[in-house]
Amino acid sequence: MERRNVGILGATGMVGQRFIQLLAQHPWFEITWIAASDRSAGKTYAEACRWKLDTPLPPRIAAMTLQPNVPEGSAVELPKIIFAALDADIARELEPKFAAVGCAVISNSSAFRMTTDVPLVVPEVNADHLPLIEHQSWRKENGGKGGYIVTNPNCSAIGLVLALKPLEEKFGIESLFVSTMQAVSGAGYPGVASLDILGNVVPFIKNEEEKMQEEVVKLLGAAKGDHVEMLDARLTAHCNRVAVEDGHTECISIKLRKPATFDEIVAAWEGFKPLEGQHLPSAPDSPVEYDHAVDRPQPRLDRMRGKGMTTVVGRLRPCSLLDWKFVLLSHNTIRGAAGAAILNAEVLARLGKFETKKKVLA
Amino acid sequence: MERRNVGILGATGMVGQRFIQLLAQHPWFEITWIAASDRSAGKTYAEACRWKLDTPLPPRIAAMTLQPNVPEGSAVELPKIIFAALDADIARELEPKFAAVGCAVISNSSAFRMTTDVPLVVPEVNADHLPLIEHQSWRKENGGKGGYIVTNPNCSAIGLVLALKPLEEKFGIESLFVSTMQAVSGAGYPGVASLDILGNVVPFIKNEEEKMQEEVVKLLGAAKGDHVEMLDARLTAHCNRVAVEDGHTECISIKLRKPATFDEIVAAWEGFKPLEGQHLPSAPDSPVEYDHAVDRPQPRLDRMRGKGMTTVVGRLRPCSLLDWKFVLLSHNTIRGAAGAAILNAEVLARLGKFETKKKVLA
Amino acid sequence: MERRNVGILGATGMVGQRFIQLLAQHPWFEITWIAASDRSAGKTYAEACRWKLDTPLPPRIAAMTLQPNVPEGSAVELPKIIFAALDADIARELEPKFAAVGCAVISNSSAFRMTTDVPLVVPEVNADHLPLIEHQSWRKENGGKGGYIVTNPNCSAIGLVLALKPLEEKFGIESLFVSTMQAVSGAGYPGVASLDILGNVVPFIKNEEEKMQEEVVKLLGAAKGDHVEMLDARLTAHCNRVAVEDGHTECISIKLRKPATFDEIVAAWEGFKPLEGQHLPSAPDSPVEYDHAVDRPQPRLDRMRGKGMTTVVGRLRPCSLLDWKFVLLSHNTIRGAAGAAILNAEVLARLGKFETKKKVLA
Amino acid sequence: MERRNVGILGATGMVGQRFIQLLAQHPWFEITWIAASDRSAGKTYAEACRWKLDTPLPPRIAAMTLQPNVPEGSAVELPKIIFAALDADIARELEPKFAAVGCAVISNSSAFRMTTDVPLVVPEVNADHLPLIEHQSWRKENGGKGGYIVTNPNCSAIGLVLALKPLEEKFGIESLFVSTMQAVSGAGYPGVASLDILGNVVPFIKNEEEKMQEEVVKLLGAAKGDHVEMLDARLTAHCNRVAVEDGHTECISIKLRKPATFDEIVAAWEGFKPLEGQHLPSAPDSPVEYDHAVDRPQPRLDRMRGKGMTTVVGRLRPCSLLDWKFVLLSHNTIRGAAGAAILNAEVLARLGKFETKKKVLA
Repeated sequence: MERRNVGILGATGMVGQRFIQLLAQHPWFEITWIAASDRSAGKTYAEACRWKLDTPLPPRIAAMTLQPNVPEGSAVELPKIIFAALDADIARELEPKFAAVGCAVISNSSAFRMTTDVPLVVPEVNADHLPLIEHQSWRKENGGKGGYIVTNPNCSAIGLVLALKPLEEKFGIESLFVSTMQAVSGAGYPGVASLDILGNVVPFIKNEEEKMQEEVVKLLGAAKGDHVEMLDARLTAHCNRVAVEDGHTECISIKLRKPATFDEIVAAWEGFKPLEGQHLPSAPDSPVEYDHAVDRPQPRLDRMRGKGMTTVVGRLRPCSLLDWKFVLLSHNTIRGAAGAAILNAEVLARLGKFETKKKVLA
Repeated sequence: MERRNVGILGATGMVGQRFIQLLAQHPWFEITWIAASDRSAGKTYAEACRWKLDTPLPPRIAAMTLQPNVPEGSAVELPKIIFAALDADIARELEPKFAAVGCAVISNSSAFRMTTDVPLVVPEVNADHLPLIEHQSWRKENGGKGGYIVTNPNCSAIGLVLALKPLEEKFGIESLFVSTMQAVSGAGYPGVASLDILGNVVPFIKNEEEKMQEEVVKLLGAAKGDHVEMLDARLTAHCNRVAVEDGHTECISIKLRKPATFDEIVAAWEGFKPLEGQHLPSAPDSPVEYDHAVDRPQPRLDRMRGKGMTTVVGRLRPCSLLDWKFVLLSHNTIRGAAGAAILNAEVLARLGKFETKKKVLA
Repeated sequence: MERRNVGILGATGMVGQRFIQLLAQHPWFEITWIAASDRSAGKTYAEACRWKLDTPLPPRIAAMTLQPNVPEGSAVELPKIIFAALDADIARELEPKFAAVGCAVISNSSAFRMTTDVPLVVPEVNADHLPLIEHQSWRKENGGKGGYIVTNPNCSAIGLVLALKPLEEKFGIESLFVSTMQAVSGAGYPGVASLDILGNVVPFIKNEEEKMQEEVVKLLGAAKGDHVEMLDARLTAHCNRVAVEDGHTECISIKLRKPATFDEIVAAWEGFKPLEGQHLPSAPDSPVEYDHAVDRPQPRLDRMRGKGMTTVVGRLRPCSLLDWKFVLLSHNTIRGAAGAAILNAEVLARLGKFETKKKVLA
Repeated sequence: MERRNVGILGATGMVGQRFIQLLAQHPWFEITWIAASDRSAGKTYAEACRWKLDTPLPPRIAAMTLQPNVPEGSAVELPKIIFAALDADIARELEPKFAAVGCAVISNSSAFRMTTDVPLVVPEVNADHLPLIEHQSWRKENGGKGGYIVTNPNCSAIGLVLALKPLEEKFGIESLFVSTMQAVSGAGYPGVASLDILGNVVPFIKNEEEKMQEEVVKLLGAAKGDHVEMLDARLTAHCNRVAVEDGHTECISIKLRKPATFDEIVAAWEGFKPLEGQHLPSAPDSPVEYDHAVDRPQPRLDRMRGKGMTTVVGRLRPCSLLDWKFVLLSHNTIRGAAGAAILNAEVLARLGKFETKKKVLA
């Protein structure tokens, strides 16, 4: 099978680097276009980027020239698939431009996540929200050959919603508390100052609690034509930054709509394999794994399960206030960002959403 | 005023070292007796102890000889006041022996905290529970000259109960959720292995959630003659260990019995000064301080407020599930252990509970 | 005694904050003027500064208004003594302006440290270099009432030169290796990104090795009229950043000109008290302390000795290549920056160098 | 090719776990026997081991039963190849017993490293020392079918000697200074207490400086029949523990016997490929890589190069005292321990040293 060309917006940041790393050997996609801010455009990737991952920067990418981050004026052909790792303010301005000229924009930004006709998707949870794209106004631009925007959730919401989905399906969710301990890589580079986090906790991440609270109910909601009906559940989030490089840990108390035993809940998690048989390159065998050890999951030990795409849950025990308590862990820059977007793209490829519009809608 | 002689059981551990540090210059108490396990007895303190605090080991203490940790056989006279920093299993065996021979045992251990007639006390919260000691059977031993045991709560419960007490008084507490991020010093030395906590979170501390849940309702309960009526409130705790040296951070959601505004809650905290006018050496001017900064409290920056005896609260904001959310911070080995016990002793001194039994009861 | 008015340039940075903290209760100096960059001028200190120290921001300073960082146009009178905590580029431009109008500029910057007629001083080491100021051209400006600039060394050089001075005096120094492990606070705020230092070492600090190598031989050199003759010794430095908040640790191998025993070296350090009897508020009782423990000094435990002004040395042992090896530790933002400048100012005050020029030179 | 059976002594410790991890998929060796202390013998590996690596414990090993750590009494057949990850005291007692009954003991312990007829080997450096085994007295035991002991160096010496070997070959080494910043995993589990290393440096590792100093000159020495002539070079080491999970960083100053330029030294490192063409499964393509970035190598980013078997060097620059300075990094539990031993075993397999003695010596 021929690999499709893809581009990366915001290629030099922390999430951009993860895109490079995860796509370097991808069987379906080939990076042919990378862009960064005006300051970096024209430089090679190696010159412009402070590579912060623990695998080597792929030499082919190192030598590529960064393009301006607009749809026009590239020295190389603009691919039809654009992965976007931009700050929200920039994404709000740039992503629509790429969609308007016909690109499928697979975005990790928060800019359009809550927009009515933009799907906010984690494939195992709500791939059925993807048809929302056909309602996007960008579709009609470019002489009817316009593209679309698909988003994935905030890094702290992805792991959570994976653990919640099988519970919602089997028992229904009424309400939940979640308290997070989030890794510094979630804030990008340079991001969190070392003086703020060495031997410390910062009990505040701007807008993070709001994002978790609103994104989870959209993700677990039902797509109804051109919009999503939010799940009727109440969620309260406490978000904290801790001295961990990668991997968000979350403590949850949950009230279910139907009674459930320990065994039934664990079985719901272990039986949750909605993508099985689709052979998507980035989909883990198990999106959710339960660990029976008394003190797991832990970020340093468990974040790379399923190549960083598996949510690990543990410590399921009764809650004296709601029904049950548990702990979960999810890799924040793989499953929580670049890997999430790539998995979205793989699903779109399977659905034929990367063909020309004519073919798709025919 | 003459200083009273005091002893320290478990003097070489982390909490024992804090006792040494905090009592070294104490205006009311003078350390005349220190004890440690059989292995260390007979050595000088300097020989037996790996001093881990960032102030120098006081030379007078360094030269003192460790006594066996039993009431008999000391080369120096056993003081009537014993601070105990023992593991629960050892405390369960040793503390009663000291009480039986007439000592006031001011214990930091969990061994007897939930025993019916043992007061579990934070002076600003429930000094009125102290009369429970008169019901203790140890009182009757030693020819009617027996002593007693007074305990302080777990390090994670003390900061919390200080923040809760004014809310209980003004508005009543119906239920709460608390998720902790606890410092490694809470586990003693060597305690937490560095391989377990560098770049990591351990979402489990043995028995900690149970202790928080049961101790808080006893502390906020009402002393009724020979026992305490527990507060009728529901509490659920999630306890985690993070890479912080000192200072426990806690995220709380709370449901009150009466509606309260932001200003009323902050006023309740700021107006909470139950020990004012008593001039206890270790009592902070403000047991609870509210910090209006958006990202505080933080352990590295705020743990030493009030010389480590003040609970700092911040980020009060509405909770979408219960009523309010906030963050609190408390120094775990000062207010949460040695300082708590010393403050208990100061109250007992003020109450005349260190005089001979005859005088006290007359 | 009346306190002299002082000002602080660069008051909001990490070193500026240390100046605020250390001068807040200073018996000789009173902060009456604080300045920061144009962006902050006009704001109160509390508004402009992200206070990162673990003692509270003094309320009087919090309410002070930041002045523009030029000698003119202040709403309050410009003091004659200016502590400067500026980046080198800015210092190079601004400090001479303040000297020209008559201020004594006590600088922590590297801008003029190696300038021929600018004294680079650690009082215990080379207070006799201070008369260099009389040769500075700024002295002649302002109608003959010009001021001067006095500097203190780089944070990594100060601790080292304190340990070396008594060895140079007693035995002579021929050559030395030094390998540092430096705290992140040395890079200011935000400074080192957490992703660069959590679980990591960065074996590079820009210009740091060069500064150590050139400053040490000036500090240990001899003032000859209008210049300093450098010490004839060879020094090679390896500088590293580690995950420590405060306190630089340094490993040293040294070759002496005369043979010296373990006891003689330790005696040289312990007997080194050149400021004794001068009663300078910031001078520690012992500028150098030797710790006989096998694994000390350590930054977390020893950086606050002498209120952060004492260099702690330890592990003196034979070197198989040069003569002796040892370890030293020094607090990098107290002794290594703000405290160093304040001690310089105290010496200048004792020497009468803060009186009007006429009186001084008469 | 059939895989050879191998056993692991000390299988549950940190190095033992690395053996399990690295051998789990090894093409030449198959773990058929694992042993641990008496306390653990009889339990399954999963029961006895607190698995601390970030890849899952292989299920086949998890279910294996731990044997007593003696050559007799195993429920399963004792393999002829034994990897040993024991503390030195225990190794001194146990390893000879296994050698005596005919096992090839591939040891990571320090117990016999400096023993005259025991080869201390890093294959790229001194595989020609391996014939020393034929002089070992254990060879003659067991009716002439005795085994032997082969050792690998201390974790801090391996990376260093790899960087030194090409310099010794091309230019000769006269003397060097090395200062280390070592990871906590080097101390095993629980090893370093978190209170000792969070925000701290411990400038002392017991016996480490001595080991580095003596092992390097043996490794770079020449095998002469039944012993090794040590390299005539002087080495001084300063060893420190820092808050890094894995990866030892070392700062080196070196004096060469012949002048060498920057380019010649880098060329020596890059051209150093002594095992090329041997197709050993654990040998990296490049045992030494030079990184031209100004601030590399760094442990978090570079320790996994060559699957943890490559030494990364960087920052080559002139030394004002000796000739050159540089920084190196090596993974301490892979190249520095288990991987080193496995590579030794691979070389022994290639040399036919795992065949029965008769065949080998015939």
